Amino acid sequence: MLAAVLAAVRPADRAAMEAASARMDSLAKPPRSLGKLETLAVRLAGMTGQVHNQVKKRRILVFCADNGVCEEGVSSAPQSVTLAQTINLTRGLTGASCLAKHFGDELRVIDVGVMCDVPCPEVINKKVACGTQNFLRAPAMTRQQALEALKAGVEQACIAKAEGVEILGVGEMGIGNTTTSSAVLAALTGLDAEAVTGRGGGLTDGAFDRKKQVIAAGLALHRPDPADPIDVLAKVGGFDLCAMCGAFLGAAAERLPVVIDGFISVVAALCAARLCPDARDYMIASHVSFERGYLPAVKELGLEPFLQLDMRLGEGSGCPLAFLTVEAACAVMNEMATFEQAAIDDGYLADIRRGDAFTVKEQEKA
Amino acid sequence: MLAAVLAAVRPADRAAMEAASARMDSLAKPPRSLGKLETLAVRLAGMTGQVHNQVKKRRILVFCADNGVCEEGVSSAPQSVTLAQTINLTRGLTGASCLAKHFGDELRVIDVGVMCDVPCPEVINKKVACGTQNFLRAPAMTRQQALEALKAGVEQACIAKAEGVEILGVGEMGIGNTTTSSAVLAALTGLDAEAVTGRGGGLTDGAFDRKKQVIAAGLALHRPDPADPIDVLAKVGGFDLCAMCGAFLGAAAERLPVVIDGFISVVAALCAARLCPDARDYMIASHVSFERGYLPAVKELGLEPFLQLDMRLGEGSGCPLAFLTVEAACAVMNEMATFEQAAIDDGYLADIRRGDAFTVKEQEKA
Repeated sequence: MLAAVLAAVRPADRAAMEAASARMDSLAKPPRSLGKLETLAVRLAGMTGQVHNQVKKRRILVFCADNGVCEEGVSSAPQSVTLAQTINLTRGLTGASCLAKHFGDELRVIDVGVMCDVPCPEVINKKVACGTQNFLRAPAMTRQQALEALKAGVEQACIAKAEGVEILGVGEMGIGNTTTSSAVLAALTGLDAEAVTGRGGGLTDGAFDRKKQVIAAGLALHRPDPADPIDVLAKVGGFDLCAMCGAFLGAAAERLPVVIDGFISVVAALCAARLCPDARDYMIASHVSFERGYLPAVKELGLEPFLQLDMRLGEGSGCPLAFLTVEAACAVMNEMATFEQAAIDDGYLADIRRGDAFTVKEQEKA
Repeated sequence: MLAAVLAAVRPADRAAMEAASARMDSLAKPPRSLGKLETLAVRLAGMTGQVHNQVKKRRILVFCADNGVCEEGVSSAPQSVTLAQTINLTRGLTGASCLAKHFGDELRVIDVGVMCDVPCPEVINKKVACGTQNFLRAPAMTRQQALEALKAGVEQACIAKAEGVEILGVGEMGIGNTTTSSAVLAALTGLDAEAVTGRGGGLTDGAFDRKKQVIAAGLALHRPDPADPIDVLAKVGGFDLCAMCGAFLGAAAERLPVVIDGFISVVAALCAARLCPDARDYMIASHVSFERGYLPAVKELGLEPFLQLDMRLGEGSGCPLAFLTVEAACAVMNEMATFEQAAIDDGYLADIRRGDAFTVKEQEKA
């Protein structure tokens, strides 16, 4: 399955990007004066193969899972919050879901590893196991489980494409997942725990130190292979990270633009890019997460986030505003006048260029 | 008139901000995890005096004027573009107007000094004169003209409030107005031309050097009084800058949230803040303009822009996405669940906390 999805990813359509660039330069504005809106519109053309795009049908995938490493006291919230918020996500009550509802985005909640049954029919059940193992005691999951979770993400991207979704966002819910994400990022990049670990939901100094120790100890124990992202995910990752990685790969295979949310999302995107560098062509970075570790990850991806909101909520909460920014890029490409169309062709400008109209008016004023 | 509007500005309502902060902290998320969306929602409460706000009725004011200093070759576009784009702004064809139209924002175009009659009834005629004087030869305008243009801006803010507008944006169209803005900023701050001057629409190296020389020479010639923003605006500014400054003051007097667009807009906002420091409480910085000079201006204002789009088009083009970001902040405040509301009160969580549900499910899996 993984080999098939990796083989299906094609790089961005360079011809479409060149045509999009040419149209962008023909619009009535100083060249590149719309900055990243122009870049986004051109990249979108590369993703879909078309110069003109729209992103009216938008969906956020929120993968939910629990993390065994919470036993080590690495989180500020109790583990039960994963279940509560998994359900609240379906009700428009959480940060991401209230924003999605407000701006007309679909939000799909997928259980890939919440620690117990989720008594809510709106949550899609793709549970791989009831939470991961505590990676200080055992690998978080088996390689087979990692691939199963990844497959759940690929599937959601394929379903979205089949249902006409035009842009996808990837978020998560899982107490403890900044710990797993920092561990995965450290393993992939060789950066040490200090450089990639933040306070997550808001840890005390003591718990923050403990979090960094736990990450360093987990990596020392399992020595995941940085050249094998699945090995890294299986040993110190989470089911949410695996599924999100799969969603990024599936979106790329389906040529579907996909928005990265915050820290956990960007780490999953990095796993996808390590498995398949061309997958980056379909990724859109959105906001610069407040969480330490976001920047080195997005830098390796070579993507430029455009929202600076100091957010660190997760859930996909950065996606609704990112979707609207991409929509703005589409509006520029589709609705702005070209230089030719913008000319006021009534002879008036010609008069002004000769100075006539200007002089006449100045005389009238005098 | 100026004295009256300055006297009408009241600082933000601290009691409303405290109530808004308390509600924000009661919402089901880690404290401050929605970053600047939280700050915006709380600031908005300070502006309107109410915890719950909405920004459904949105208007961008675009003040248009020509600048005599264009004679000196400081712009990449011919001066006639001011007129052409002033008209195109009313037709949804320019960058800002296509975005405004797309996202349902009103856009009002006001001629405060285009160099000739504007043959377009949709453009509001508040022309003070047919362009300013070339400030290398004479003061750009008289003090009386500066006050007249400023008044036109105040009036538009008052009209907006009276017509039920909930958030205002302030933009401009005027070839040469990055030159006047840099000159005004240098005069106000004491920074030299080098530090506050960018390439505007895209100058060649030679024209860029010329632009900086012109600014330095204009300042040396007129020596505007940095303690008197009206003097600065009159000597080296533009009618657009004056009117925009008036719009910021009028919005503050009317307790109307007002969005700063890019470089020219932030310089006008700085003039308003120098005239009336409390006016800052009503200003919302939006995007970090690519134009050099934006950052020192926004820093003095003490505001934090949240969009990083490398834009430098002007016209108010950053306002539509900024409005949507403010709308997101309102949605969080108005629609997210509190911790109390978010609890899934069906006994299930209590079971999990005791470990029962978790254990049962693990046994089933095994």
